[in-house]
Amino acid sequence: MFLIKVLVIGAAGRVGKLVVEKLKQTTSYTPVAMVRSKDQKEMFQKDGVSAVLGDLEKDFESAYADVDAVIFAAGSGADTGAEMTIIIDQEGAIKAIDRAKHFGVQRFVMLSSMAADRPEAGNREIKHYLFAKHRADEYLKSSGVPYTIVRPGPLTNEDGTGTVFLSEHVNGGESIAREDVAAVLVAALTHPKAEDKSFDVVQGDTPVEDLFRH
Amino acid sequence: MFLIKVLVIGAAGRVGKLVVEKLKQTTSYTPVAMVRSKDQKEMFQKDGVSAVLGDLEKDFESAYADVDAVIFAAGSGADTGAEMTIIIDQEGAIKAIDRAKHFGVQRFVMLSSMAADRPEAGNREIKHYLFAKHRADEYLKSSGVPYTIVRPGPLTNEDGTGTVFLSEHVNGGESIAREDVAAVLVAALTHPKAEDKSFDVVQGDTPVEDLFRH
Repeated sequence: MFLIKVLVIGAAGRVGKLVVEKLKQTTSYTPVAMVRSKDQKEMFQKDGVSAVLGDLEKDFESAYADVDAVIFAAGSGADTGAEMTIIIDQEGAIKAIDRAKHFGVQRFVMLSSMAADRPEAGNREIKHYLFAKHRADEYLKSSGVPYTIVRPGPLTNEDGTGTVFLSEHVNGGESIAREDVAAVLVAALTHPKAEDKSFDVVQGDTPVEDLFRH
Repeated sequence: MFLIKVLVIGAAGRVGKLVVEKLKQTTSYTPVAMVRSKDQKEMFQKDGVSAVLGDLEKDFESAYADVDAVIFAAGSGADTGAEMTIIIDQEGAIKAIDRAKHFGVQRFVMLSSMAADRPEAGNREIKHYLFAKHRADEYLKSSGVPYTIVRPGPLTNEDGTGTVFLSEHVNGGESIAREDVAAVLVAALTHPKAEDKSFDVVQGDTPVEDLFRH
């Protein structure tokens, strides 16, 4: 059977780990976890998951060997300062998109953030972050790589409900469980209706398996 | 006589002030100083210079009325943190380029920074800044607005010498007086040989008036 090889960038992150889990549970995808440390790599491998070392700030080209699709779930986090927002969230993503283009990746699914399509609306604390995410999203849109951009509302660690509300634009900032975001990222991988589209997503009533049907 | 109206964005900055001075001394250009505060505006006006209020973080569209060319000399400075590097140096510049395109500006001269064309080479302290400048420069290059990008070495407050070394790539990080940088930005305004080109510039032996001749 043909397995679609999905490189998960940021696999050791909170959403990334859940993405790897979801991919493992499918019969059509096989995850490759891209991580920065040997410990993380061994952790995934012990769990039966392929893993590669790669650092968004340095080199990670070798991670793309035979990769069919990419899910970008990396982020510098809130504790490292805006320098790292530029270096990882914006430029790391742009480098990952360049590599995806170079290696002919068939789909690039980007974990973005609600309001990244209208950063001016952001308050003082998050505006720079939204601009950085916006710039990466815009780069992806004009890259020529088939893409899906997913912009979730505020993330929670609740158990996933399996149901969401997904639309090109959602008014209001309802939250969503990281587990449900991970499921949406995986669902977006091959649906033709998700190709070259951007979506907001929050908790809601639509089963994830019914998304992108029409 | 036909006067070329040049909007100087960041006119109250150290390079910006010198650019306004240089433009005033010419017979073919007339500067419009874009500044953030009423005090700065009055200061320029007392000096016989047209000035407009505009804030890169907010709105400045009205500053573009009848503008033929733009010199972008704004920067958030080293004291405000990387958040402002994104908001001003990168996104303020991108917004200024969008406006220039919208209003059919004939030349956009960008004050960039040496190594902004190879940010990966930057050390930890300035890498994020170089990435932000790089992103703005790349945006300008693909905007369709006729441009010149000037990337000076480390800036000093020495008196200008009137002579520089300008080349598409300069090896080494020699410094250059802000006054000479200002003169180069002004010289780049209308020379056909400077159009859609990017240059490094440091102190050297070529009189600024001889630049862009061949």
